[in-house]
Amino acid sequence: MATDAWQRLQPKLTELADLSSAIGLLGWDEHVMMPPKGSERRARSSSTLQTLYHSRLSDPELGTLIDELQGDTSLDDVQAATARVLKREYDRATKIPKELVRAIAEVSTRAFHVWQQAKEESDFQLFEPQLEEVVRLKKEEADAIGWEGERYDAALDNFEPDAKTVEVEALFTQLLEELQPVAATILDAAGPRPDLFSINPEPDKQLTFCRWLVARIGFDMEAGRLDLTSHPFSIGVGPGDVRQTIWRNPASLIDTVSSAMHESGHALYDQGMPEEWRDLPIADAPSMGMHESQSRLWENHVGRSRPFAEFVLPHLKEHFGTELGMTTPEDLHRGANHVERTLIRTQADEVTYNLHIGLRFELELALFRDELKVADLPDAWDAGMEKHLGIRPANHTEGVLQDMHWSTAYLGYFPTYTLGTLYAAALFEKAQADLGGFDDEVRKGDCSRLLGWLRDKVHSQGWKYSAADLSRNILGEELSVAPFIRHIKTRYGELYGVSFG
Amino acid sequence: MATDAWQRLQPKLTELADLSSAIGLLGWDEHVMMPPKGSERRARSSSTLQTLYHSRLSDPELGTLIDELQGDTSLDDVQAATARVLKREYDRATKIPKELVRAIAEVSTRAFHVWQQAKEESDFQLFEPQLEEVVRLKKEEADAIGWEGERYDAALDNFEPDAKTVEVEALFTQLLEELQPVAATILDAAGPRPDLFSINPEPDKQLTFCRWLVARIGFDMEAGRLDLTSHPFSIGVGPGDVRQTIWRNPASLIDTVSSAMHESGHALYDQGMPEEWRDLPIADAPSMGMHESQSRLWENHVGRSRPFAEFVLPHLKEHFGTELGMTTPEDLHRGANHVERTLIRTQADEVTYNLHIGLRFELELALFRDELKVADLPDAWDAGMEKHLGIRPANHTEGVLQDMHWSTAYLGYFPTYTLGTLYAAALFEKAQADLGGFDDEVRKGDCSRLLGWLRDKVHSQGWKYSAADLSRNILGEELSVAPFIRHIKTRYGELYGVSFG
Repeated sequence: MATDAWQRLQPKLTELADLSSAIGLLGWDEHVMMPPKGSERRARSSSTLQTLYHSRLSDPELGTLIDELQGDTSLDDVQAATARVLKREYDRATKIPKELVRAIAEVSTRAFHVWQQAKEESDFQLFEPQLEEVVRLKKEEADAIGWEGERYDAALDNFEPDAKTVEVEALFTQLLEELQPVAATILDAAGPRPDLFSINPEPDKQLTFCRWLVARIGFDMEAGRLDLTSHPFSIGVGPGDVRQTIWRNPASLIDTVSSAMHESGHALYDQGMPEEWRDLPIADAPSMGMHESQSRLWENHVGRSRPFAEFVLPHLKEHFGTELGMTTPEDLHRGANHVERTLIRTQADEVTYNLHIGLRFELELALFRDELKVADLPDAWDAGMEKHLGIRPANHTEGVLQDMHWSTAYLGYFPTYTLGTLYAAALFEKAQADLGGFDDEVRKGDCSRLLGWLRDKVHSQGWKYSAADLSRNILGEELSVAPFIRHIKTRYGELYGVSFG
Repeated sequence: MATDAWQRLQPKLTELADLSSAIGLLGWDEHVMMPPKGSERRARSSSTLQTLYHSRLSDPELGTLIDELQGDTSLDDVQAATARVLKREYDRATKIPKELVRAIAEVSTRAFHVWQQAKEESDFQLFEPQLEEVVRLKKEEADAIGWEGERYDAALDNFEPDAKTVEVEALFTQLLEELQPVAATILDAAGPRPDLFSINPEPDKQLTFCRWLVARIGFDMEAGRLDLTSHPFSIGVGPGDVRQTIWRNPASLIDTVSSAMHESGHALYDQGMPEEWRDLPIADAPSMGMHESQSRLWENHVGRSRPFAEFVLPHLKEHFGTELGMTTPEDLHRGANHVERTLIRTQADEVTYNLHIGLRFELELALFRDELKVADLPDAWDAGMEKHLGIRPANHTEGVLQDMHWSTAYLGYFPTYTLGTLYAAALFEKAQADLGGFDDEVRKGDCSRLLGWLRDKVHSQGWKYSAADLSRNILGEELSVAPFIRHIKTRYGELYGVSFG
C-alpha cells in the first residue's frame, strides 16, 4: 500500500518542513537583525524548536512508515529518493544516543566561547581540553552512526553523504601533487597586492550595488533578500524565501563583490529547487560539496572571469563614481585574481585555497586515525603550512586557531570546500561545452543560459541522487581534479603570461 | 506540595515562552522582512507553531498542575498570579472546541481577503456573508467560553480580561455625553489643516530620526529595533528583544513622529517587564486597554505636548534642514494637535478619536445583543457617523468597511482603544501630581522621571493584577472619564483660546 503510506507521510513532512523553516528564520534573524540583548531567549527558543524537530524525526511511527515505503517497489523515483533520504535522517536521529547529542551540543557551545578567547590570546593550551572533548565525542558519534571503511567516513558523511574517505583522500593526493608546482609558478609570477584592494565605500552603498548585481545574474528578489551581517552566509528559510548576506564591515569592495557572487551561488541553488517538492527532504542539495560547487562556480568561474570584469566595471563606476577611481577591466581582472601566500584560509585566492584545505583534511584524518594527538596539533599545523604553502604562522591566532569549525564540532566539513571546487570546475567546463561558450553573453551581464543549464542539470535534481551520482550523470564520468587544474593553468597562464611544464 | 508543583511547572512555561517567541518573530518578519513569495510557507509555518503552542497549553497535565497550584494557600503573590493567569489561558484553550477554533481561523483568513476587495470596491454586500459567519462564530465562541452578565462580556474578555460590558458601557455613555459638547466647541474653533502636514522627507531619513528619538525618550536599542513597515506595530519577541515599526510610506513627518511615540509607548511597556518573570505569563500587560494606555500616554500626553514641541523642534531642524522650513514651536504644537472632523478613524485626532470608537462599540453591542443584523450595518454606520461626528461617508470604503478588525474576527477589541485613552489620561495626571510636574525636563528631552514612574507603577507590575485592579492600586480610585475630559479642555482651551461651559 505505497500510496497509503505516502499519504500518511505527508502531514509529517509538512510539520518537519514548517519547523525547519522556523528554525532557519530564527537563525537568520539572530545573525542579521536580533538586538544583542535578545540572544539568551533566542538560543533557548532555537534549541526548543530543534528538540521538537528531533522528536518528530525520531518518532517510531515515522520509522515504520519509512520501512513500509522502502519495502515497496511501486514507488516512483521521487518517492523512492524521499524514502532513502528520510531513512538516512531517521537513522541519524535515532542511532545517536540523546545524551551524546546533548553532550556534543554542550561542548560545542562551550568550546566555541573558549576558542574565541584562545584565538584572541593565541593560547592553544586554553583550547586544548575543549578540543580533546570535541574529538572524543565526534569519534563516539561516528561509532554510534556506524561506518564500514574507516571511522572518518561517518564524520564526512555528516556533510558529504555517501562519500568515502578513501576516495576523497585519493582526490586530495592527486590534487595536491598537481597543484603544488602550478601554484609555485603562479606565486612566483604574481606581483604585489593591487591598490584596488583598498577601495572600500560605505557598507550601505555596497549593499545597494550588490542587491542590483545579484538580481542581474538571476537571483529573484521577490523570493529572497540580501542583507549585511558580520559573517556572510546564505540560507533557504523556505520555498520563496532564500536569504543571503554580505559583510557588514568588508575590507574592500572587491571582496564584497566576490562574496556576493559566492553567496548568490548558494542562493540560486536554493531558489532552483523544484516547486513541487517543496515539503520533501529531497528539495535540498545532496551534499555540502555540491552546494559549495555552486558558490565557487559563480564566485570564481563567473565572477572572477575576464568577461565578467568587462561587464561589471561600468556599473561599478556608475554606482561608486570617483571613489572607484580610474580602473580598467584589466586592473579589475588582475585585482580580483591576485594570488599570494597567506596564512589565513578565508583570505586565500582560488589557487592557494585548496592547499589550506589539504592541510586541514590531513590533520582531521590523522586525529580520527589516532595518528595525531590534539596536543600535537599546533606543531603539525605549522609543519603542514611550511610543507603546503612554504610559510609558517608567527602565532596560533593566524595558525591552528584561525578557524571556528573544530570548536563547533564541524569535523568532516573542510574537505567539502575542495570537493566543491572540483565539482565547480568540472560543471563549468561541461556547461561551456554543452552551451558552446557564453563569454559574449557574460560580457553583457547576461548569465541566463548558464543559469538555465545549472537549473536543469543541478538545481532541479535536488537530492534525488547522491552528489557523486548526480555529478556522474551530468559529466558522464567520475569527478577528477583535471578540470580544476586546467582552469587554473588557463586563467593564470593568460593573466601572468606563464606556461606550465 | 506547592514548591513541587511550581518546579514541575517551569519546563512547561519555558517551552510555552520559547514557542511564543518563535511565533512572535515569524509574525514580525512576515510584516517587516519577508520577501513576498515566502508568504505561503510562512503562513503554514506560523500555523504549525501555533498548533504546537495550543497543544502544550491544553495539555491535561498542565491543567492538573494548575489545579494543584490553585488549591495551595502557601503560594507567594507572583506564583498565585501566575496560577490565575494560566488557569484563564488553559480554560480558553480547552473550553473552545477545536473545530470552532479552526472554523474561526479559516473564516478570518477568507473574510480578510474578501474585506480587502470589498473595501476597494466599496461593496458591503460582497463582505456581508463573511461577516455574518464571523459574528455567528464569535457568538458561539462566547458561549463556549461562558459568561455571566451578557454574551459580549466574553468577546470583551478576549482583549480586556475581567472587564464587564455593563461597566464599560457606562464609561462610554458618560464619555460621549461629556465629550460631544467639548468636541463641538473645539471643532468650531479649529482652523484649516496646517501646511506642516505636507512635509514628508524620504522614509529612510525619517527612520533615522525616529531611531534617535525613541532612544532619547528611553527605548533601549540594545534590546530592540525600530524598522519600516506598511502598518506600524510593536511586538515583544522576548526579553531583550522588543521591536517597533513605523510606516514605510508615511503621509507626513508629523504623523511619523506621532506614530513612533505611540509605538514607543507599547515598546517601553514591554521593555519594562520584570527580568525575573521572563518565562511567566504574567510578564505581560493585564489587558489591551492597559497596553494602549502606554502608547496613548507617550503619543498624546508627552508627544503632542507644548514642552515636547519645544524639545523636538531644534532636532527636527537639524536632521531635516531646509525640508522642514521655518517652523516655530507654536506651529509644530498646533500642527501636532490639529482637530477636524474626519471619516477615517486612523486619521482622527485625540479629541474626535473616541467618537469613532463609541460608534463601533455601539454597533458591536447591538450585533451581540441581536438588536442589529449584519445586513443593516451600513445604514447603522452612516446614521451613527451623523450622530457622533456630524458627517456621513459618501461610500462604504470610508465608512463601514474602513477597519480590518471585524474581518479578522477582532470583535471586542475596539473598546480597548478608549479604555486606553482613559487610563492614559488618569495615569498621566497622577504621574504629574506624584512627581510635582516635569514640563521643564520634557522641554530638555528628559523623560526619565516619567518613565521611572511608569516603570515602577505600571510596567513592573505586569499582569499581577487585572487592569482595573492595577489602575485602582495606582490611582486610589475607580477609572473615570474626568481626567481625559480635563486634559482635552486644558490643552485645546489653551490652544484655541476657548472656554467650556
